[in-house]
Amino acid sequence: MRDKRFHRAEPGTVRPGGRTARVRAAVLRTAGDILVEQGFGGFDLADVARRAEVGKTTVYRRWGSVTGLVADLLADMAEQSLPREETGSVLGDLRANAVLVRRTLADPRQGALFRAVIAAATCDERTAQALRRFYEVRVAEWAPCVEQGVARGELPVGTDAEEVVRAVSAPLYHQLLTTGVVPDAPAAERAARAAHAAAVAGVYVG
Amino acid sequence: MRDKRFHRAEPGTVRPGGRTARVRAAVLRTAGDILVEQGFGGFDLADVARRAEVGKTTVYRRWGSVTGLVADLLADMAEQSLPREETGSVLGDLRANAVLVRRTLADPRQGALFRAVIAAATCDERTAQALRRFYEVRVAEWAPCVEQGVARGELPVGTDAEEVVRAVSAPLYHQLLTTGVVPDAPAAERAARAAHAAAVAGVYVG
Repeated sequence: MRDKRFHRAEPGTVRPGGRTARVRAAVLRTAGDILVEQGFGGFDLADVARRAEVGKTTVYRRWGSVTGLVADLLADMAEQSLPREETGSVLGDLRANAVLVRRTLADPRQGALFRAVIAAATCDERTAQALRRFYEVRVAEWAPCVEQGVARGELPVGTDAEEVVRAVSAPLYHQLLTTGVVPDAPAAERAARAAHAAAVAGVYVG
Repeated sequence: MRDKRFHRAEPGTVRPGGRTARVRAAVLRTAGDILVEQGFGGFDLADVARRAEVGKTTVYRRWGSVTGLVADLLADMAEQSLPREETGSVLGDLRANAVLVRRTLADPRQGALFRAVIAAATCDERTAQALRRFYEVRVAEWAPCVEQGVARGELPVGTDAEEVVRAVSAPLYHQLLTTGVVPDAPAAERAARAAHAAAVAGVYVG
């Protein structure tokens, strides 16, 4: 029933602007809309197909299941995310990262989407894997700013770059998930400075 | 229909070992079991009553709804949580806090329970409020260790004690929720040292 070739858009299989790309864009946009409006509870492939004005058979053949569609939504979000900034100092770069993470969580659509996906990941292994992969892509994108900081002598040799990047995100996600309050700009500044201070002190060497 | 007097156990209304306390204990234990086994999806007051061997009417009258029961479960977890430790140094105290948070998340029952409740809080306001209250109680319990650290001159004057305590928990929750991997002992040690280094650097002043 499910055609593996179409399950995920592999590089080369999607011509930008082609029908396959248009269908994927429409389906992912609709899937995001529904997740934001109703969370995972109201999520149903037939409903996505109807609202996206795409054939039900196409949606079932290409994504197979709700979790397959959410996995592709996260892959698309990782692809669409902004590239890292280079400000010339590791503190500046971590600050740029914190601002970006905060903006994502504060965005009504993306913030709601993340909450829905994180909730679903707590009880669905495939969504959890897709979420893990999303963060791996984002952390790998920003890790070089820490490596450059080490090379410039701003941070101790042996600093675990990915740990530092995760440390910037952690308090912002933690605040949103445990208090429901979207982190503000001072919270992003604190997150960047805290990760930087801990890295300078050698906490992430190891 | 709902009797406000019995909705939450107020001090004085529950004789330890009395029938009311026994019913509450049985219902909360069963509610926890079901959340751990099935998450929020399979959660139903009638099922809780049946498995706890408590009258359905009693459960509906006292807790009113699934979210009312989860709110009481969180209140009970806050009451049952261990008191803070005093080790004589703020780093030692933050380390004790990190070890406790890690153990809670690593515990098969409590870890699963937190994941289920955090997931539910993303889409239910009453559960979100109960979760917020749980963290307020826990953060208030540990904040004095930071205040004592300030008084002893280990941390800068004006350090926001609650921010420091939250900073210890943040990377541990973040790791569990975004990667699904239970934080290990070195992660707890890193979380304590990172919060301490950032506090020493004055990140949480103001």
